[in-house]
Amino acid sequence: MKLNRRDVAKGAMLAAGLLGAGSQADAYTKSTKRQAGPTPDPEAGFWKKPKGNEYIAMVAYPGMTALDLYAPHYYFATMRGARVHIVAETRAPLLCDRNCTIVPDATYADVPANPDLIFVPGGGVPTVDAMENDALIDFLADRAKGARFVGSICTGALILGAAGLLQGKRATAHWKVRDACLPAMGATPVNQRIVQDGKVVTGGGVTAGVDFGIYMTNIFRGPDYARTLQLISEYQPEPLYNSGTPEAAPAGIANFVTGLLPGYNERAARIGNRKKA
Amino acid sequence: MKLNRRDVAKGAMLAAGLLGAGSQADAYTKSTKRQAGPTPDPEAGFWKKPKGNEYIAMVAYPGMTALDLYAPHYYFATMRGARVHIVAETRAPLLCDRNCTIVPDATYADVPANPDLIFVPGGGVPTVDAMENDALIDFLADRAKGARFVGSICTGALILGAAGLLQGKRATAHWKVRDACLPAMGATPVNQRIVQDGKVVTGGGVTAGVDFGIYMTNIFRGPDYARTLQLISEYQPEPLYNSGTPEAAPAGIANFVTGLLPGYNERAARIGNRKKA
Repeated sequence: MKLNRRDVAKGAMLAAGLLGAGSQADAYTKSTKRQAGPTPDPEAGFWKKPKGNEYIAMVAYPGMTALDLYAPHYYFATMRGARVHIVAETRAPLLCDRNCTIVPDATYADVPANPDLIFVPGGGVPTVDAMENDALIDFLADRAKGARFVGSICTGALILGAAGLLQGKRATAHWKVRDACLPAMGATPVNQRIVQDGKVVTGGGVTAGVDFGIYMTNIFRGPDYARTLQLISEYQPEPLYNSGTPEAAPAGIANFVTGLLPGYNERAARIGNRKKA
Repeated sequence: MKLNRRDVAKGAMLAAGLLGAGSQADAYTKSTKRQAGPTPDPEAGFWKKPKGNEYIAMVAYPGMTALDLYAPHYYFATMRGARVHIVAETRAPLLCDRNCTIVPDATYADVPANPDLIFVPGGGVPTVDAMENDALIDFLADRAKGARFVGSICTGALILGAAGLLQGKRATAHWKVRDACLPAMGATPVNQRIVQDGKVVTGGGVTAGVDFGIYMTNIFRGPDYARTLQLISEYQPEPLYNSGTPEAAPAGIANFVTGLLPGYNERAARIGNRKKA
């Protein structure tokens, strides 16, 4: 396997979690021209001899946004040998926010004290309700102590915050709640798609779950593995519009979405503040 | 609502399905600088008075890739008033390919003769098995007759092909099967993320489901609605690597993934060819 020095250094730093998502290994380009650089030999072992059988606990709760969970789930479950579980208080079928029902395959009691990752998806109003669910918050706070990584997508960061896990951390969340709610939980909001501060890795809204999945694969299995899963999932996105952030979207659209769910941010910040105290 | 003439023309053509995904309304840029152009007034009604209560049937089958379905599902279920159903032969819990279980909320018999969209996700070996599932193929072929649109993501196109729905059509699929299998089903493969040919809309591998969801929202509800859902889902992607297509990925990675699942393409093409005859 031939790698140039720059790639090895960057890959190692990314794998060790020393670089944020802003310091990406490759500059993204829509061009399909093959990039110059390393042409790793898969036979060298990155696929055949995966580094670990990580335990990954993905926490599900009623009304969560299913895509927040299933986007990163795809990548974790494609890491050969990883033990990926959808975890809830019970194994009863669980109605998500988009009128779809999933069945958890593990309960809180099944999750070991030191999972490699404990992950929380976001959602609408039910996510703020989950901030007040003591069984969920206690479970999360307990397993986070021994976890190698703690992660969230979208408004899932609010639940991490309610469990006291964002105290003193740089973090991100769905743009609608990021600056408005994270400070109430002791966090410094960062306008970035993925933010890593020590063992806490947070992602932006909904579709950031794809980037989160590849980011964590890169940490768990290294750059060759992450590139392989990016290719298998054909992640060469082509957004129809330039409307994915409030800064980029037409002002009328941004203002309209900002006005949706009145009172949501205030309630979430109030709960987060109370939990912090 | 102020729109310039160019935008109205492009938006209308996109909504009418007259432009392919290659003719995007906005050039995609990673810049978060607000785009020049229209600043639509949501109060004008695009959100408050959605155009329809579309019936969207998303076909689930054992072993399918959950993310193929949940990515577009998010967008459809966020189209206010749309009736979005996860459809299978029975409502029994269904194990997907990534060790996760979902519960369909409708059976084949529940789906009307003229759904606005009938959609099929892809997967690995179970997708080729599904090509030989007569109940599924007969259901799909029947409802496709009256459907306004027929769609697929990833290897789901193989199932459309087995139902005879790609005959004489331009289509795409996961890159691993696109050129190798689609011709056996009478289709002309196109290397493009989303391909629309009349009422048949096919997408590339796995993550193309996000682009598919926004593309169809654009058709069903128009550009303002599609931009709004792109913003709510924070779809401003930042792939960690430039490795999302076999043309872009390092050669070693591309060759390795090309070699996975030996015999898969041959079996799919054989079944597709037999069904065509």
